Amino acid sequence: MLDWSSADVLSIAHMREAHERIKPHIRRTPVLTSDYLDELSGARLFFKCENFQEAGAFKVRGACNAVFGLSDAMAEKGVATHSSGNHALSLSYAAGRRGIPCNVVMPRTAPAAKKDAVRRYGGTITECAPSTSAREEVFAEVQARTGAEFVHPYNDPRVIAGQATCSAELLEQAPGLDAVVAPIGGGGMVSGSCLTLSNLAPGVKIYAAEPEQADDAFRSLQAGHIIADDAPETVADGLKVPLRENTWFFVSRFVSEIYTASEQEIIAAMKITWKHLRIVMEPSSAVPLATIMKNPAVFQGQRVGIIITGGNVDLDNLPWTGAEEEKR
Amino acid sequence: MLDWSSADVLSIAHMREAHERIKPHIRRTPVLTSDYLDELSGARLFFKCENFQEAGAFKVRGACNAVFGLSDAMAEKGVATHSSGNHALSLSYAAGRRGIPCNVVMPRTAPAAKKDAVRRYGGTITECAPSTSAREEVFAEVQARTGAEFVHPYNDPRVIAGQATCSAELLEQAPGLDAVVAPIGGGGMVSGSCLTLSNLAPGVKIYAAEPEQADDAFRSLQAGHIIADDAPETVADGLKVPLRENTWFFVSRFVSEIYTASEQEIIAAMKITWKHLRIVMEPSSAVPLATIMKNPAVFQGQRVGIIITGGNVDLDNLPWTGAEEEKR
Repeated sequence: MLDWSSADVLSIAHMREAHERIKPHIRRTPVLTSDYLDELSGARLFFKCENFQEAGAFKVRGACNAVFGLSDAMAEKGVATHSSGNHALSLSYAAGRRGIPCNVVMPRTAPAAKKDAVRRYGGTITECAPSTSAREEVFAEVQARTGAEFVHPYNDPRVIAGQATCSAELLEQAPGLDAVVAPIGGGGMVSGSCLTLSNLAPGVKIYAAEPEQADDAFRSLQAGHIIADDAPETVADGLKVPLRENTWFFVSRFVSEIYTASEQEIIAAMKITWKHLRIVMEPSSAVPLATIMKNPAVFQGQRVGIIITGGNVDLDNLPWTGAEEEKR
Repeated sequence: MLDWSSADVLSIAHMREAHERIKPHIRRTPVLTSDYLDELSGARLFFKCENFQEAGAFKVRGACNAVFGLSDAMAEKGVATHSSGNHALSLSYAAGRRGIPCNVVMPRTAPAAKKDAVRRYGGTITECAPSTSAREEVFAEVQARTGAEFVHPYNDPRVIAGQATCSAELLEQAPGLDAVVAPIGGGGMVSGSCLTLSNLAPGVKIYAAEPEQADDAFRSLQAGHIIADDAPETVADGLKVPLRENTWFFVSRFVSEIYTASEQEIIAAMKITWKHLRIVMEPSSAVPLATIMKNPAVFQGQRVGIIITGGNVDLDNLPWTGAEEEKR
C-alpha cells in the first residue's frame, strides 16, 4: 500500500500506479516535430501535445489520479478546488467521468473558454477576485458548505504523481533526450517531470520556463525559499500562481535553471508554433520555446522535449489580434 | 516495372511503390479524436492530420512521389506546376529535398502564408489572375522557358498514387472504418483514397465534401461528365479547381456521394475543430465535418475517417474574425 501523504514520500511507484489508474481516462498524446522550428532554434525539439487531451490540458492526468483514487465513501461528497482554469475543467471532467459532483472557485477574469468547459463537464463555478488570497478565501467557504474532498491544483501529491505520467510517455516517444523544458506556474507539471526524470532518466536536464512578469519561481530558486506574488499580470494565464511546499520540494532539488521570457517573446513563440506546428495551444505553452530561442547557447544541438501544457484558448481573442488592433 | 502513364493503369502496387519511395520525406501523421465532436455529430470520428506534414498538407505525398521518381536526367531541369497553394509549396518542398529547381504559377489571390512557404522552400513564383484559364496560360509560358517536368497538382497518376498512401495509413491507424470523407477540389486526395480503399477495404464508403459555392464536382457526378467552373469563390481556397480526366476516372467509379456545405457551415465547422480538436487547419479541411453535421442520418453511429488536408492558414486573417468585424 503506497503512502500518498506528501511530496517527499513520492517514488516512481506512485507515478506507475497513477499511470495504470488514469490510462482509461486520458490520451497518450502524440509528440510532434517541426524541421522549421528545429532550424530556427538550433535544437531538435519534441513537442508533447497535452493540448490534445479531451479536456485540453495535462491537468487531466493529476485530476483523474486524484478522483479515481478516492474511496467510494470519500467520493460521495464530490471534489472541490480553486484554479485559474485548466485544473478546474480537468477536475470537472474527471469528476464527470466518475459521476460525482465538482465545485470550483475561479477568478472572474479566467478565460471564457475555460469557464464554458467547466460547465460543459458538469462542474459548478463560484467566482472570486483575481488574486491568490481572494480565491483561497472564497474556496474555504465553498469547501465548508459542501464537505467535498479538496484537490489542490498542484500542491497535492496525487496530482503531482498524475502529472508525472506525461514525462514517462515522452521518454518512450522521444528517446535520447538531453533536456525537458516545461512552463512553471505552481510547479505541478515541473514537479511531476522531476519525479519521473530523476528516477528513470537522471541524465536528462530539467528546465522550467516562466513569464518575466510572473517570475516568482525564478526568484524563489535564486533566493532558496518560496517567494509568492499575489496577483501577477501575464498573457500566460495558467502561470500566475506561486510555488507551494510540495512543488518547491521538487523544483529546489531537480530543476537546473528557470528561464524567463517577456510578454512579446511569449506571444511571438505562440504564433510561430501555431503557424509551423499547426496546433492550437495556450500562451503558457509557448513560454518554453520562447526561452529556448532566447538562450540558444544552452540548447544548441540538443534533443529537447517541450511540454505543450494546454490548448483551451478563446479563439475570438487571440493575443496577436489584439496587438495588431492597437497598432492601427 | 510499373506503368505510370494514366489513372486507369494505377493499381495498389503503385500506391505501395509510392509509399516506400516517399517514406523518408513525409510524416506518418497522427489520427486524433474528440469525444465532444463525436457527441455533436453522432458518429465516431477519426481525424487524419495531414496538416502536421512539414509542408502543412497531404500534397507532399504526391509531390514527393513525382519528384523522387524522376530519373537524374529528367530531374536536372527541375519541376514546374500551377496551384492555388498547397501543391505549389509541397512541390517546392520536395524539389528542395532533392536539390532541383521548382517553378510555380500561383494566383495573385493565393494566401500570403502559402506564397511565403513556397519561397522559403526555394520555389520560384510567377503570379497570374485567379482563374483556371489564366493560370494554365501563364504556366505554358513558364514551362516553355524552363523545360521543367510538369507535375500537375492532381491530374497526374504519380500524384494520385502518392495521395493514396494517406488512406493506407488511416486504415492501419483507425481499424474498422465504415466511411472516409475527404474534401474535393480537383479530386487528387479523393482519387488516391479511392485507389487504396477500393483495393484494400472495399466495404469502406467514400464520400467527398465540397463547398456549395464551388460545387462543380457535385454537379459533375449528377450529370455523368465533368463540369468545370472557371473561377468559383469560396473561403475553402484549396477547393476551387475542377476535376480532370484522371480524377474523374476514380470519382465517377468509387465515390458514393458528394455532399456540399455553405460558407457559414464551413467556417463554423472550422472554428469548432480548432476549439475542440485544437489543431490549426484550413477552411478546406472543415468541409467534411460540415457535411457530416448536415447529414446526421447518413453517418449516425458510424466510424468515419476524415482527412484534414492542410494547415497553411493566415493567422492574421481568420474567417471568423472577419465575420465578427462585419457584425460590429
